[in-house]
Amino acid sequence: MTIKVTVVGGSGYLGGELLRYLLQHPEVALEKVTSQRFAGRSVGRAHPNLRGVDLTFAPRTEIGDPDVVMFSTPNGATAPQMASFVERGVRVIDLSADFRLRDATLYRKYYGEHPAADLLPRFVYGLAELHRKEIRDAPLVSGTGCIATASILGLHPLASFGLIDPDHVVIDAKVGSSAVGAEPGLGTHHPERSGVVRCYAPTGHRHEAEIRQETGIAPGLTVHAVELIRGVSATVHAYLKEPMTTKDVWGYFRKSYGNEPFVRIVREREGLYRFPEPKLVRGTNEAHVGFEVDEETRRVVVVSCVDNLGKGGAANGVQSLNLMYDLPETTGLRQFVSHP
Amino acid sequence: MTIKVTVVGGSGYLGGELLRYLLQHPEVALEKVTSQRFAGRSVGRAHPNLRGVDLTFAPRTEIGDPDVVMFSTPNGATAPQMASFVERGVRVIDLSADFRLRDATLYRKYYGEHPAADLLPRFVYGLAELHRKEIRDAPLVSGTGCIATASILGLHPLASFGLIDPDHVVIDAKVGSSAVGAEPGLGTHHPERSGVVRCYAPTGHRHEAEIRQETGIAPGLTVHAVELIRGVSATVHAYLKEPMTTKDVWGYFRKSYGNEPFVRIVREREGLYRFPEPKLVRGTNEAHVGFEVDEETRRVVVVSCVDNLGKGGAANGVQSLNLMYDLPETTGLRQFVSHP
Amino acid sequence: MTIKVTVVGGSGYLGGELLRYLLQHPEVALEKVTSQRFAGRSVGRAHPNLRGVDLTFAPRTEIGDPDVVMFSTPNGATAPQMASFVERGVRVIDLSADFRLRDATLYRKYYGEHPAADLLPRFVYGLAELHRKEIRDAPLVSGTGCIATASILGLHPLASFGLIDPDHVVIDAKVGSSAVGAEPGLGTHHPERSGVVRCYAPTGHRHEAEIRQETGIAPGLTVHAVELIRGVSATVHAYLKEPMTTKDVWGYFRKSYGNEPFVRIVREREGLYRFPEPKLVRGTNEAHVGFEVDEETRRVVVVSCVDNLGKGGAANGVQSLNLMYDLPETTGLRQFVSHP
Amino acid sequence: MTIKVTVVGGSGYLGGELLRYLLQHPEVALEKVTSQRFAGRSVGRAHPNLRGVDLTFAPRTEIGDPDVVMFSTPNGATAPQMASFVERGVRVIDLSADFRLRDATLYRKYYGEHPAADLLPRFVYGLAELHRKEIRDAPLVSGTGCIATASILGLHPLASFGLIDPDHVVIDAKVGSSAVGAEPGLGTHHPERSGVVRCYAPTGHRHEAEIRQETGIAPGLTVHAVELIRGVSATVHAYLKEPMTTKDVWGYFRKSYGNEPFVRIVREREGLYRFPEPKLVRGTNEAHVGFEVDEETRRVVVVSCVDNLGKGGAANGVQSLNLMYDLPETTGLRQFVSHP
Repeated sequence: MTIKVTVVGGSGYLGGELLRYLLQHPEVALEKVTSQRFAGRSVGRAHPNLRGVDLTFAPRTEIGDPDVVMFSTPNGATAPQMASFVERGVRVIDLSADFRLRDATLYRKYYGEHPAADLLPRFVYGLAELHRKEIRDAPLVSGTGCIATASILGLHPLASFGLIDPDHVVIDAKVGSSAVGAEPGLGTHHPERSGVVRCYAPTGHRHEAEIRQETGIAPGLTVHAVELIRGVSATVHAYLKEPMTTKDVWGYFRKSYGNEPFVRIVREREGLYRFPEPKLVRGTNEAHVGFEVDEETRRVVVVSCVDNLGKGGAANGVQSLNLMYDLPETTGLRQFVSHP
Repeated sequence: MTIKVTVVGGSGYLGGELLRYLLQHPEVALEKVTSQRFAGRSVGRAHPNLRGVDLTFAPRTEIGDPDVVMFSTPNGATAPQMASFVERGVRVIDLSADFRLRDATLYRKYYGEHPAADLLPRFVYGLAELHRKEIRDAPLVSGTGCIATASILGLHPLASFGLIDPDHVVIDAKVGSSAVGAEPGLGTHHPERSGVVRCYAPTGHRHEAEIRQETGIAPGLTVHAVELIRGVSATVHAYLKEPMTTKDVWGYFRKSYGNEPFVRIVREREGLYRFPEPKLVRGTNEAHVGFEVDEETRRVVVVSCVDNLGKGGAANGVQSLNLMYDLPETTGLRQFVSHP
Repeated sequence: MTIKVTVVGGSGYLGGELLRYLLQHPEVALEKVTSQRFAGRSVGRAHPNLRGVDLTFAPRTEIGDPDVVMFSTPNGATAPQMASFVERGVRVIDLSADFRLRDATLYRKYYGEHPAADLLPRFVYGLAELHRKEIRDAPLVSGTGCIATASILGLHPLASFGLIDPDHVVIDAKVGSSAVGAEPGLGTHHPERSGVVRCYAPTGHRHEAEIRQETGIAPGLTVHAVELIRGVSATVHAYLKEPMTTKDVWGYFRKSYGNEPFVRIVREREGLYRFPEPKLVRGTNEAHVGFEVDEETRRVVVVSCVDNLGKGGAANGVQSLNLMYDLPETTGLRQFVSHP
Repeated sequence: MTIKVTVVGGSGYLGGELLRYLLQHPEVALEKVTSQRFAGRSVGRAHPNLRGVDLTFAPRTEIGDPDVVMFSTPNGATAPQMASFVERGVRVIDLSADFRLRDATLYRKYYGEHPAADLLPRFVYGLAELHRKEIRDAPLVSGTGCIATASILGLHPLASFGLIDPDHVVIDAKVGSSAVGAEPGLGTHHPERSGVVRCYAPTGHRHEAEIRQETGIAPGLTVHAVELIRGVSATVHAYLKEPMTTKDVWGYFRKSYGNEPFVRIVREREGLYRFPEPKLVRGTNEAHVGFEVDEETRRVVVVSCVDNLGKGGAANGVQSLNLMYDLPETTGLRQFVSHP
């Protein structure tokens, strides 16, 4: 099978990573890759790791004749043009934040008025671990926020089995600088960004909305920028309703993720990597989750790590693509990260 | 006035930083600086930033005739020898963890049996912001744990005014690599330590004990090693008993810290440094605290930063020294950090 | 075809990276992977990126019945045992420094007396760009030093075409911390190693010997440890015998490397990556070389980058393996690095 | 004595560091600090490390009535307005690149046409180690380029005593990101800048001009951006005319710098800091120089480190100020850097 894929907005970090995966995907043919800014230039101009690839950015109106369009556009850029794609009947995977939420009210609270709210209910939230079946049949699939992905995967077993007090869930996330995207600014100016532990969103981070939608829990989400280019680590702090051991919690995580090809439970007795570490998911579609219970206080701590451009971005979109075309879910997504 | 100070255990990171402060202190004369490993060698041999200083490590039995002994020894090393100093009538500031807790039971839970438990009640916890008056009159003063210091200073206003639900307090701390000390190991081997977000203590970190003693609250403390040499940032997550705004919380922090020479409330409307940042307290005795309230959920988030070897270590000990000798509290401790 | 490979010394960084490549190699079956320290434990215990791989370290005496043995042992460890392998007739690729030099006198100058000097002339220096033909027919192939690899590939076109004054060649190299290996020490203790520009070998670095052997030029090599885990960047400074432009130099590099599958000439007119950058070869077998001529002074500057565990280590060994077994040279070695 | 100093262009990194030194200087009163962008706002707004300082930026036309004006303006900004200051008879220390060169032809080669070339000969190059006497009597003093400062101080003993072949001098410099200044751009966007070894100037770097002027040697200068915020390390590679040992070279460095308050010769037999390291001059006015001779090839390697905003910038300007006002040269400039 060859799936003809057009990538819209291919010159940012998410677009570059999406191209990297698609170029290595055995069943994908790139129909077009558009970029407003780099139209007419080779993809290697925007992405130095893709130098030598024989592929040129098309103007953003040149979509070609794809089976599926994957959007790696900035938030707010896809919503206004989505109707035209839907009418055309082309399948869509939109990695931007525009169609991740089903509820226009929730969207409004965090992002403002939605320009195509009628389309919101027609999209499926593109996280296979929670929506595998729906993604398979869906013509319209969203991507997932990077911090949201780590948080949801960490929280999901606790939430879906009703193990925790839903009113006291705190998520303390740490993210790398590439989450901001490829546009420079004062916040990412190296002398200011290097070596920080910057709490830039103590409350009110937008990804709260996705977590709430997907887990039914409204957590307090706090986000810190740390010294890291790639990666998200979300530490979920919650309280168990009933006394439970770490081993008990393990059982629930196994039930949730035992058959998941891209979720690994990391909880070892010794060594430096007893709990999940973002370095070890760099450049992959993996999510690592680990946990520990403080039996005395019934507090459970879950650590959940993804690559913000991998499982929290482009790679996760390719996993959805595989599902939509009945391919083995891991097609084009298996590789070992190098260490150290 | 000249205070004769002997530093015991001067070759580690805490010792080096203590020497740096004492060498610049206008009222201090260094009587002896001991080191088991570096005895007979110049201090510049252990501390390259002190090269050129004309000072040699003494063997650890050579204490000289000091007014006060400051211990920057590893945990467990001062307790067995403390009685002999107490009998001699010399004043003591012990920066190790050995005498920070008043309660032998609490000590046992986190550290094991205390070898000189009878002395525990005679020490004062050396944090001026909570114990200024007692430190002034005390012959025996402890230091404070670095993560504990950041946590306590972040939590204290909320706890002392009874503003928060004491049963759902979470502290998510991020620390630099120098907190481990000067001894190399696999955990600090650069290829393994660089760029991590390593949750090495999801539950049960020892500094919980100090926080509990000083705030009356038993928090859930989770600690992450992040890419940073110097600094601790503690993010306190708690729930307000009553509805309150960020401005209200500001009022309580002002009441607690309005006159404190080394605590700065950092909460700005714009810019990159709206909340506390460990880079900006590097090499100083400052603690920066900031906060934000999510009014909808009554969650309050406090960010509190110290230098683990500064306000969370050596500099804080010098602040106690100043108090004990009726010097202006800021003597030898005022300096601007450089930026960026 | 299936090549049965035994890896001796598989628990270090070089061994881990070698396993990563071999596990992804379509024509390789791992016969045994030995480790003195980790015998009996899974490879994921030593290499967290290989968790989940069903493979256990064998004791170092269990070699099995391989077609080829690849050594990723510390320097000095293979030489004493090499004779027994040679007698057995098994093919060898030795990534350690023990058999890189042909001349026992040169070896003695940099390493001391060689314990199996008679075997030195029987090995081929395993750098395909210079010895492709010999490697194809060789039973015994060495690896290459990481700094040497970057230096030799940068210098080779200038040296082999006789373009430069051989008496004034300086190589200023910058290396990451993983080059030291997996054993921790004070020099790699994170607080000491992080953020340094440490000139640890102003003169006399051992890799001078390999460069001299392979280029016929005895350069002055100076090595700096910089903040980086993976990568080597060697800046070659030399003087052209005749006036020449950058474009002229390009011509010679094209002649040398125009058909090389793993050497890329990087010299662009604009952008951030106009010259080679170690980040862009991370986790690959690529070498990037670029250059610029100062026509006024006839100075030519060449920048040459490799991953110390990739083209400067394990991946390069796999390239030799492919040659020895008449496989396409890129088998198991093609992948895009992710960026940023 | 109180020297009234006006700082023109105080909101950049150089200006911030200059303010930090001047605020701690016992003989300086800040008359005005101007900033085009931040006029009317507190200095803490531009410089988070100076929060709490009671000082407001003046518009750039408000110079007040100073004894001396210190310019920390971008290159090209002071030259057009310099005549008016000179006419007014106010003393000037210009930290920009505008008046570092005496020769308009040399300036033109590297910077273009000079807008006030007639003033070039009236300035003194503000490096006390080479021009102490002239600075004392000068009304007009320039600053020094950061890479130039490290290079000149490393090269000066070799050059002034005529020890080296002047035609084969190579300087390989490594610089931190703050050298670029406070304006963000793609080159300093954290995901692109972090972890690089970027050779951004293989040949033709502007600081060649200063080095040439001050040492009489036209070196080949190559500059790399490395992972570092603050610091310059210049490695000078040269060839001795006569056979000489490292100890001999030491003698010449002692002759040059034995009495210099801010130059330290760093060359130790053991330890991690045997040669100069930029971390150890961070936030200071110190320059560290070290060296090693390869007797076989007569190559001498000198490593020279400064803080680009310290001895290579603002602090060095304060040293000139001290000289101009007959103060002890170290006034306001003595402090220990903290380590690690």
